[in-house]
Amino acid sequence: MLSLKSSTAPWWLGEVEGHLEEVLIDHAHCEKKAAGTALNLIFAYVDRPSLVRELTPIVSEELAHFRLVLDLIEARGMRFRRLVPSSYGRKLNDLVRKQEPAKAVDRLLVAALIEARSCERFCLLRDRLQDCELAEFYGSLYASEARHHAVYVELAKLFASEDEIRDRLDELASAEAAIIDEGDPMARVHS
Amino acid sequence: MLSLKSSTAPWWLGEVEGHLEEVLIDHAHCEKKAAGTALNLIFAYVDRPSLVRELTPIVSEELAHFRLVLDLIEARGMRFRRLVPSSYGRKLNDLVRKQEPAKAVDRLLVAALIEARSCERFCLLRDRLQDCELAEFYGSLYASEARHHAVYVELAKLFASEDEIRDRLDELASAEAAIIDEGDPMARVHS
Repeated sequence: MLSLKSSTAPWWLGEVEGHLEEVLIDHAHCEKKAAGTALNLIFAYVDRPSLVRELTPIVSEELAHFRLVLDLIEARGMRFRRLVPSSYGRKLNDLVRKQEPAKAVDRLLVAALIEARSCERFCLLRDRLQDCELAEFYGSLYASEARHHAVYVELAKLFASEDEIRDRLDELASAEAAIIDEGDPMARVHS
Repeated sequence: MLSLKSSTAPWWLGEVEGHLEEVLIDHAHCEKKAAGTALNLIFAYVDRPSLVRELTPIVSEELAHFRLVLDLIEARGMRFRRLVPSSYGRKLNDLVRKQEPAKAVDRLLVAALIEARSCERFCLLRDRLQDCELAEFYGSLYASEARHHAVYVELAKLFASEDEIRDRLDELASAEAAIIDEGDPMARVHS
């Protein structure tokens, strides 16, 4: 259902547990960026009523998650700060085609895949993190990531046929799996 | 309390009543832009926890208003569409100083003044619009504009002294009144 072509490698969990502060701060930035992505899509396709209606609550949910992560960071005596992001988002966004309506399809499917990967990893954190409070926290978040994934894939169908969406999602999911496989030297949600 | 240096001229209400569809569509765009402004401020000053905390609910409120206006547009059989904006926002944003922390101060105070002008005009629409449903609608919105105004002014104090904020707000409010006085050939919320 999540369209992903790979599962997260075991080393990633170790990276997270070894760099919890960095990963939490990165997670907060990811939620903020997800709100920005949804709002930018509203701005770009404001003449599509169903897109606007589906994405406005997602902006608010991402911001609510952003605040939850900030609260958690603060409660642990950590300080939220700027952080170099992983290369994952940039590499995925580089795959977006330049001409409409292909651009809209790709922006929505890339957003769908990022939600899917977050969902897969949040499930892993729920099941495997030794820090029980954090495990529970990720357990409370993963379902909305799965829902957002489904919304983005559905919205892509406003801009191309179901067959085209299926094929392109398949292509982009392969590329996403390759990007995840390359990894990233920094401990991040999407490293 | 709203810092404005002028009251809306009587001709504006006539413009609104003569171009209700255009003004409602412009209003929807204004709410969307207000959400974008708040989110951009969060992105720019993400290392200021109180700014992030105060502005995240404002993003969600602006988007909720955006959806309310869209519903109203749809219920009236009108079609939401792209629209040339009034020159008001651009002229105000041209006044923002380029260097930090003056830039932060000005971005916040300009946002505060736009909320203040919306509040003043929504009050006028509540009291004077002949269309009772719309008058009631604007009556339900104006209070949050006043609240947002106050939040933006308070947040500016993170970046300069109270005296500096008072003086700069006074300057920008004079400029805002002059921009409103110039008017705009199109019927808009801020024409």
